[in-house]
Amino acid sequence: MAVHHFRPEYYYNTIGQHQPALKICDGDTVITTTVDARGWDQRGESAANRGNPMTGPFYVDGAMPGDTLEIRLESMTPNREWGWTSNVLAPNVVSPRAAAALPPSDIVRWSVDVEQGVASLEKPTPGLAGLKLPLRPFLGCFGVAPAKGQSISTATSGEYGGNMDYRGLTAGVSVYFPVFAEGALFHLGDGHALQGDGEIVGTGIEISLDVRFSIRLRKGETIGWPRGESDTHWFCIGNARPLNQALQHATTEMLSLLRGNYGLSDTEASLLLGQAVEYEVANVFNPAYSVVCKIPKEVLAQLK
Amino acid sequence: MAVHHFRPEYYYNTIGQHQPALKICDGDTVITTTVDARGWDQRGESAANRGNPMTGPFYVDGAMPGDTLEIRLESMTPNREWGWTSNVLAPNVVSPRAAAALPPSDIVRWSVDVEQGVASLEKPTPGLAGLKLPLRPFLGCFGVAPAKGQSISTATSGEYGGNMDYRGLTAGVSVYFPVFAEGALFHLGDGHALQGDGEIVGTGIEISLDVRFSIRLRKGETIGWPRGESDTHWFCIGNARPLNQALQHATTEMLSLLRGNYGLSDTEASLLLGQAVEYEVANVFNPAYSVVCKIPKEVLAQLK
Amino acid sequence: MAVHHFRPEYYYNTIGQHQPALKICDGDTVITTTVDARGWDQRGESAANRGNPMTGPFYVDGAMPGDTLEIRLESMTPNREWGWTSNVLAPNVVSPRAAAALPPSDIVRWSVDVEQGVASLEKPTPGLAGLKLPLRPFLGCFGVAPAKGQSISTATSGEYGGNMDYRGLTAGVSVYFPVFAEGALFHLGDGHALQGDGEIVGTGIEISLDVRFSIRLRKGETIGWPRGESDTHWFCIGNARPLNQALQHATTEMLSLLRGNYGLSDTEASLLLGQAVEYEVANVFNPAYSVVCKIPKEVLAQLK
Amino acid sequence: MAVHHFRPEYYYNTIGQHQPALKICDGDTVITTTVDARGWDQRGESAANRGNPMTGPFYVDGAMPGDTLEIRLESMTPNREWGWTSNVLAPNVVSPRAAAALPPSDIVRWSVDVEQGVASLEKPTPGLAGLKLPLRPFLGCFGVAPAKGQSISTATSGEYGGNMDYRGLTAGVSVYFPVFAEGALFHLGDGHALQGDGEIVGTGIEISLDVRFSIRLRKGETIGWPRGESDTHWFCIGNARPLNQALQHATTEMLSLLRGNYGLSDTEASLLLGQAVEYEVANVFNPAYSVVCKIPKEVLAQLK
Repeated sequence: MAVHHFRPEYYYNTIGQHQPALKICDGDTVITTTVDARGWDQRGESAANRGNPMTGPFYVDGAMPGDTLEIRLESMTPNREWGWTSNVLAPNVVSPRAAAALPPSDIVRWSVDVEQGVASLEKPTPGLAGLKLPLRPFLGCFGVAPAKGQSISTATSGEYGGNMDYRGLTAGVSVYFPVFAEGALFHLGDGHALQGDGEIVGTGIEISLDVRFSIRLRKGETIGWPRGESDTHWFCIGNARPLNQALQHATTEMLSLLRGNYGLSDTEASLLLGQAVEYEVANVFNPAYSVVCKIPKEVLAQLK
Repeated sequence: MAVHHFRPEYYYNTIGQHQPALKICDGDTVITTTVDARGWDQRGESAANRGNPMTGPFYVDGAMPGDTLEIRLESMTPNREWGWTSNVLAPNVVSPRAAAALPPSDIVRWSVDVEQGVASLEKPTPGLAGLKLPLRPFLGCFGVAPAKGQSISTATSGEYGGNMDYRGLTAGVSVYFPVFAEGALFHLGDGHALQGDGEIVGTGIEISLDVRFSIRLRKGETIGWPRGESDTHWFCIGNARPLNQALQHATTEMLSLLRGNYGLSDTEASLLLGQAVEYEVANVFNPAYSVVCKIPKEVLAQLK
Repeated sequence: MAVHHFRPEYYYNTIGQHQPALKICDGDTVITTTVDARGWDQRGESAANRGNPMTGPFYVDGAMPGDTLEIRLESMTPNREWGWTSNVLAPNVVSPRAAAALPPSDIVRWSVDVEQGVASLEKPTPGLAGLKLPLRPFLGCFGVAPAKGQSISTATSGEYGGNMDYRGLTAGVSVYFPVFAEGALFHLGDGHALQGDGEIVGTGIEISLDVRFSIRLRKGETIGWPRGESDTHWFCIGNARPLNQALQHATTEMLSLLRGNYGLSDTEASLLLGQAVEYEVANVFNPAYSVVCKIPKEVLAQLK
Repeated sequence: MAVHHFRPEYYYNTIGQHQPALKICDGDTVITTTVDARGWDQRGESAANRGNPMTGPFYVDGAMPGDTLEIRLESMTPNREWGWTSNVLAPNVVSPRAAAALPPSDIVRWSVDVEQGVASLEKPTPGLAGLKLPLRPFLGCFGVAPAKGQSISTATSGEYGGNMDYRGLTAGVSVYFPVFAEGALFHLGDGHALQGDGEIVGTGIEISLDVRFSIRLRKGETIGWPRGESDTHWFCIGNARPLNQALQHATTEMLSLLRGNYGLSDTEASLLLGQAVEYEVANVFNPAYSVVCKIPKEVLAQLK
């Protein structure tokens, strides 16, 4: 149950079969940092190549394909006073005609006030003067090495996690990843100070983070897609294009969760989900979109 | 500002150019009833052909193409003590392999207790014994006559509304439809006692309703897709396949709302939506899927 | 076996429950004309509202839901010397980034020389000087009244046919439509002098036509989607969004054709189609896309 | 201009940053073999892990990111007398309801007679007795190392090529790949004796091949997606999900080809493609679908 203070020295722009940066054990805690999506660190200096550079990977002793790796997100705190976003909607989130009429996009800076817990534009135009949005920091891109020895760009995501950009993955949430490689090889990065659903401008408020997480290795528990547990919900994440396929993966995994954890038949799970399921559109920007299938714990509490 | 008590005598299974059932005026209120998706009324008797039979249409005096019709949903109350749902997930919401493994679907009855505000299965299997879900009644299918003199099946939806099956359209919400035909020709039906996101078993808890709504005619205000206002949000609904196209329509209409009602430029709207937008998956079952693009009123309140 | 010379006086912009323009019988032939997609007739004058105005509908004596209507396309000949196209790709056929860079679209005229059998731009820019494309006239939009008394815009298509814009529907081909309404109510229009796959600029070379077709009523033969027979292939047409769903409908109907006409099991049909099927992308522009699933007659000839 | 006889000793199931198996030069020819999709070689013995094992990679001297690698497919000949296919349609190519009714799939063997140039089922059921299909051998999966040091499963495809399963890539065709890594690192495998469009049972007739190809390095010529040239057409291949996005990539690349090779403006290219483009559905089974955008050489010949 060690606590590791890990200072990254190299960052990868793929998730995969990289040399472990640190070996850790079931139950350990890691305190580390992540640079932002363009590789800018807490001083605003370029520390890595742009494109979601990853801290890690962390090799988890004993983890083998077929196991599940639980990541408890204990804290994620912006470690500098500004972040940045794109300022124009992605062309694929509006109708083709509206997309053609959008102005060219640019990068805009936001002040991030951790004390007050709010973000505001550094130089707002009059229409947005006074806009303050509450911080809700999370990791946009994290996960484990994918199957078959693949190394996959941190632009995208899959069964192994990756660039899911799901704003629900905040401190206090536990995330579960299927293990596909010896040691699991956990990578993390791409912090966001906050973000709307869907990452529809192609960014959250991109920022470097101080991160603290602990891990649990669940030997012999096999899952198909990332799952998570918050104070209020259990959820499953599906990553794919088109959007409907992401929803299919998330829902299929939820069927599996209800079967495995609650002993429900497909008919029982259908009756329950049909009237109580919730969905979130995590990202509709990346090469793989992400949809989250959720069920409230207060509904699940009635099952036993 | 009349109050009309309207008892339907005939129900249509398309939304379109039908003989008006009642002529009403700007500001009027209508108290009426709807039968369920299979045409069963408050006594459980067949009163109409199955397939979302509609009460109406109501002809709104003075409504012309290019206007907007506001429907204030004042109350929707189940008027019988049971509803029904399908008991198996639709094949398009799980992966093709999982879909092939699903059991055949059947219709299952739920007790609907308006006094207690809950629904429960009439004959639950052990896994779901004791499940009680809170009622949240809404109209699955309602809208105005579509453009070009079309009459379109109540299975689907479009710019004119229709079978959107959005569970957010509860009492207290105002819905705005673009008017495409003289008199607007408002139709309503397909009540649900409650439903999860996405209508993923293909039904909510289908039930007959007592409905009270009032209308406002907004002459010369032109919108592109259904919009709505709840206590907490403004929202826009897009209806189309695939799911991403529904999201595109909803987001494009929200751009238009922010431009028209708040004077935001495309860049300002993008900056706002990118970090504050919310999406709901209303239905992912019907021929046209429905996605809702929402913005919290507390964010909008900062704009002026 | 009458031959009707029919001169249209009114044109509809929906396909549906319209007053029959002419009653005809099984085996009859009709010689008539169609105006172009904007309603311009053989003299280039506006004879109808724009948006694929339809000649007809023709009421087929004895046709009832569950029957099949066979249309033998005997001849389609441009009856004026020019047509028109859009001159810019539709935004949905290129990547979003490329779409945003496209110039605004305009209408361009082509000379249509029926004698020589070629079309050429009236005023070509230097890059296209000398371009001559062979004529291959067909009907972009035709079909029968849809189910449930619907009247649907001629912009789109479905099980009943409609705006499929499939360039394979030339003279010599027989097309089969499922009958959904008494009398079938056959409509036709939207002639194209020629077109590429997919109708990717949103038009073929739009032109008015002289059309000759005969009909056969196939009582009690029930099909699900339009089918066709050319000299070389049997084919089935699926109309839907997204493109994959159009392909699904076409392939499902082909399974049904192989089962019904050739007695193949699903496994046999799969083995055959897997190694011998051909697809065409008929249109990827309209609200419903169209995909054609084809099987060569020389392969089918081996089955008996 | 060397001719290399290369006997593979190891096969990779990803395309990416693997140790070069052989270094070759611009103009060289390679004569080699590929095992089938399950790793079975010419003797029918297992020589590699299943999942499209690749022969190679071949390091091309001087190839750098931004260059183009031309592969001239000189011959592909089955080197054993049988292949295999799946015998049931993939669930995603028929409607969800039809998919649920499909029987379980199995592997079936075909006799492959290179002399006669035909394939036939080894043990046909009566419905398919006598079925003989002409051989048309091609490589299902081949391409160069992807960008960013990725190693990607041979199940899928992208800008770098990969598992495109396009049956048009037969002997006599030249294929062009964008180079993303030093040495290009060309991989090949997954031979098919023949296949229908779309690979709709998930396989062609899978077989091991003798392959002969030569390469040309086109320094400083940069393309975005695989292109090809046959006797009759120039074409571009787009790989993505959903199907429409694959079509978008292919069409966008064709715009680029017409601009670069023929000097056409976007408007000229649109006018040409709108009336003369052809599409093929290469695969609608793999994680990324493949669509081919083609233009006949006899049309292109009119441009100069």
